Amino acid sequence: MVKIVIDAMGGDFAPAAQVGGAVEALRRDKDISVLLVGDEGKIREELAKGEYDSSRVEIVHAPEVITNDDIPTKAVRAKKNSSTVVSFNLLREGKADALVSSGATGAVLTAAVLLLGRIKGISRPALCPRIPNLRGTGTLLCDCGANVECKPVNLVHFAMMATAYAQAAFGMPSPKVGLLNNGTEDHKGDPMHQEANALLKKLSCIDYIGNVEGRDIMAGEADVVVADGFTGNIALKSVEGCGKAISGIMKQQFKKNIFTKLRAALVYDVIKNIRNAADYEKMGGAMFLGLKKAVVKAHGNSRANGFSICVRQAADAVRGGMVEKIQKMLEETAQAEEGAEEGAPAGAENA
Amino acid sequence: MVKIVIDAMGGDFAPAAQVGGAVEALRRDKDISVLLVGDEGKIREELAKGEYDSSRVEIVHAPEVITNDDIPTKAVRAKKNSSTVVSFNLLREGKADALVSSGATGAVLTAAVLLLGRIKGISRPALCPRIPNLRGTGTLLCDCGANVECKPVNLVHFAMMATAYAQAAFGMPSPKVGLLNNGTEDHKGDPMHQEANALLKKLSCIDYIGNVEGRDIMAGEADVVVADGFTGNIALKSVEGCGKAISGIMKQQFKKNIFTKLRAALVYDVIKNIRNAADYEKMGGAMFLGLKKAVVKAHGNSRANGFSICVRQAADAVRGGMVEKIQKMLEETAQAEEGAEEGAPAGAENA
Repeated sequence: MVKIVIDAMGGDFAPAAQVGGAVEALRRDKDISVLLVGDEGKIREELAKGEYDSSRVEIVHAPEVITNDDIPTKAVRAKKNSSTVVSFNLLREGKADALVSSGATGAVLTAAVLLLGRIKGISRPALCPRIPNLRGTGTLLCDCGANVECKPVNLVHFAMMATAYAQAAFGMPSPKVGLLNNGTEDHKGDPMHQEANALLKKLSCIDYIGNVEGRDIMAGEADVVVADGFTGNIALKSVEGCGKAISGIMKQQFKKNIFTKLRAALVYDVIKNIRNAADYEKMGGAMFLGLKKAVVKAHGNSRANGFSICVRQAADAVRGGMVEKIQKMLEETAQAEEGAEEGAPAGAENA
Repeated sequence: MVKIVIDAMGGDFAPAAQVGGAVEALRRDKDISVLLVGDEGKIREELAKGEYDSSRVEIVHAPEVITNDDIPTKAVRAKKNSSTVVSFNLLREGKADALVSSGATGAVLTAAVLLLGRIKGISRPALCPRIPNLRGTGTLLCDCGANVECKPVNLVHFAMMATAYAQAAFGMPSPKVGLLNNGTEDHKGDPMHQEANALLKKLSCIDYIGNVEGRDIMAGEADVVVADGFTGNIALKSVEGCGKAISGIMKQQFKKNIFTKLRAALVYDVIKNIRNAADYEKMGGAMFLGLKKAVVKAHGNSRANGFSICVRQAADAVRGGMVEKIQKMLEETAQAEEGAEEGAPAGAENA
């Protein structure tokens, strides 16, 4: 049984989306139990709206909410009874295996690092959303905003962590990894990207395919696209904006007049399938990688269905041993580097 | 009469696309004349395929071609008889007012800087494509690849140049300018973006609306989006890739089986309108801004129709006085800065 802490109070539709999503996840996956953290009265009110397996639900009362207007570091220290702080404390104390929150991103990231803590060896945890692609497999984009300025070694860690995530949660034995750059050739990008590309090439624990371009993200040639947080954020939002614009253009054209509207009804199912194939909510939330346990940041505007996908995503990451895989990769890489360093002077002596 | 040099030999469909595009532009705009530069025999062959106003067409024989495999700086120096080098020499000598090329980007950019030259005061010319947006007005994205590493002052110049371009070629009296960043707040981005944002706020010759995000590019809230060349390149290609992926998904869904195919036929015109509204080729080429004359880089895979849009785009920029507007903005900004500097010591004396 995988136990998931649900931060039930953040986001636009709290706690209806979170409680509804948790109940939906319990219904679909019999091997999950949840710990709902938030205003107990409101949570019970939402729970009363439907049926659920009460043996797999616990409630922890935490009435305070951290909003987008709060300064994250201050709020995490001051609002001790907020659902976010209480959730991460429960996770740290071993009361659960993973956490899902649609609370304010800054607060979730801060609480995760301060209260739960990073995996030893990872200095920069990273946000890793999953983007719809043409192949239908989803592309992991890591980092997309947690780290504005990065060093090459951070990008190496992003590649390892997202690889472990793809293996654990999406059953990809050997996910292809690309580095987001302004061209595919090795000389492309600034010195940071050139060095990151060189380091990634040497890494034996990932399947690195080299530099990729913005257009490759949704083509799905790479399963994992590694980026510094600034560039990843721009790419993610550019893609989101493009999807929204094309969806808007489709609406404009199909709602132009009575004739187009009538014909839109004839292809309603096809349009719905197109929307589904390009739907972000179906891709789940962003995994916050590099922490001691699996933490999924759901969209702030998630509804119950979207939130339930995030809950199952967290459970899959736990079952697949994501955190352990990351730790193992770090250890093996450190050993390989030590081996290489030990080898070097010996070679020098022989010369 | 605006005279445009056509580099007829670069790109995937040369010289058919270029000659066909030039002829199409001549037909649509009676105030354009063209100088076709390339293999004379092949150009005449293409010209013979249709009717055209021969009084507005000249041919200059230049049989060599610079390809994507050539090293730009070497090729521009070595291939003196290439269509690209001859075209830029004609432009510099005053034989024409503007130039359109779909040749290798690196070679076009290099030839433009070495042979035509930059506007005084502009150290970094920038590539500025036009991206379809939801409002149907097109968003100018500047820079999108000519300058991988930028200083804040470069981004200030990009803002001025793209503003002048929007005013001259698209009749926008006061285009709204945004800075592409990973959030809208002033503290967002790395120090370079923070400083660029601060400088842009002080600039009186543009209508600056502050930081914008990737999703705003296609929403069309800003008419001009300024970016360092690395980020702009990622954004442009991410958006292109997303458009391509959604187009692919639409195809998959409408071609799924005989029933969806039949119904696709019923909404054929609507799908065509959607495609047109999101079509890059309809947006023309990328203006290479900061040079002494208007230079348009057409897509390498442009067909005659797309190329003809680029030719008219170049003519509009000349008629609207794009280069003169950029020069005027630079002068006025320099004067304002001098005034501010002169004012400072006077104030200090009074203190």
